[in-house]
Amino acid sequence: MEKRGCLYEGKAKRIYETDKPEVLWVEYKDDATAFNGVKKDVLTGKGRLNNEISSVIFSLLAREGIKSHFIERLSETEQLIRKVTIIPIEVVVRNIAAGSLVKRLGLTRGQRFDQPIVEFYYKDDELGDPLMNEEHIRVMGLATEDEVASLKEKALEVNEHLIELFKKIDVDLVDFKLEFGRDISGKVLLADEISPDTCRLWDSKTGDSFDKDLFRFGQGNLQEGYETILARLGGKS
Amino acid sequence: MEKRGCLYEGKAKRIYETDKPEVLWVEYKDDATAFNGVKKDVLTGKGRLNNEISSVIFSLLAREGIKSHFIERLSETEQLIRKVTIIPIEVVVRNIAAGSLVKRLGLTRGQRFDQPIVEFYYKDDELGDPLMNEEHIRVMGLATEDEVASLKEKALEVNEHLIELFKKIDVDLVDFKLEFGRDISGKVLLADEISPDTCRLWDSKTGDSFDKDLFRFGQGNLQEGYETILARLGGKS
Repeated sequence: MEKRGCLYEGKAKRIYETDKPEVLWVEYKDDATAFNGVKKDVLTGKGRLNNEISSVIFSLLAREGIKSHFIERLSETEQLIRKVTIIPIEVVVRNIAAGSLVKRLGLTRGQRFDQPIVEFYYKDDELGDPLMNEEHIRVMGLATEDEVASLKEKALEVNEHLIELFKKIDVDLVDFKLEFGRDISGKVLLADEISPDTCRLWDSKTGDSFDKDLFRFGQGNLQEGYETILARLGGKS
Repeated sequence: MEKRGCLYEGKAKRIYETDKPEVLWVEYKDDATAFNGVKKDVLTGKGRLNNEISSVIFSLLAREGIKSHFIERLSETEQLIRKVTIIPIEVVVRNIAAGSLVKRLGLTRGQRFDQPIVEFYYKDDELGDPLMNEEHIRVMGLATEDEVASLKEKALEVNEHLIELFKKIDVDLVDFKLEFGRDISGKVLLADEISPDTCRLWDSKTGDSFDKDLFRFGQGNLQEGYETILARLGGKS
């Protein structure tokens, strides 16, 4: 596989074309951003950790029958993915109240829900990724009704597998964000990444954070938290 | 009917007990507030106009079989209502893009939707009445699943009647907010008010506003706009 021109540079990744039109080459960066880019830093090792953790998780989900854009990990900071057009909807699943939900609705941080909550956010940095409902998605033409139902179903399925995975390593899956994309045939695939950048992960015993909140709120060393997750997951994919 | 002690004073109304435990006495105030109380003024005549318009609309909806807490108009600024416990969910129906929706999702003001949008907001001044979805309502225990379905259904039914009513008087119903309450038997009734304080109403020909946006954005004389609506509706109930 040959790496070609850079197609896109985001906050956490660079994406390159390859000699195969349906395959892209991802490079995870060490840049950390929070609060929609307001807080920024370079944290050596973050790119490697997210690439490795995301590869482990996507590989595990594939074994459980959940298809994603992930093909294979190439190096510490690189992976190959299937080319998809990202659907501009961030799908958030919450098992425990934390973050923006606590602030928005005045819930108690740490409240465990009987059933997970699914939320949709419009993926738009300029608008600050606002919460939206299924009717907003319809009038904006972001996804069909069937696709929305499928996003929700897939998100809940991923949630069940991730809860189980993290439970085994004494970590509570508080919440996480997924993105999906359509491949060339229009099929909806899980995309983006699943890492401590996109999940809230708390130690089941101590309640300590192992996720981006370490950076957001300066609670501790981000790399140490991410390293703990990778180590507990059993290292490389 | 005898008016007794004041039970509650809100931004736009005072509510009194009566000698009947199931009946309350409402007094509409001339106070205008916008942006969650940040902008305030006293606009002589506003209380009368909202009381009269709301009475006309609730009476019309009753004739169409939609039950509300409204019993009868008593005077220019007073009406009798059935006592209900307000469900802390603001149900918003939108036919045309305007207001917070335009700002939140970057839609074009004036865009007409093929089908109306229904939104739920958590009625909480301190939190700024945040948007929420049906799963938030569930985990917060604000209403049962059946009640939520019924709120949505009733809101869409009210919308159909109001669109028709306003169409006859050359007014476009852009959007509106409803509140509902449970009576002593637990039955859900339409409550609060339906007036230019709670609806966006545009002249079908000129596009001029006849609603609280006149006050919100200092676009013109609020009382003149409300007076036009009352006159076109045929005056008193």
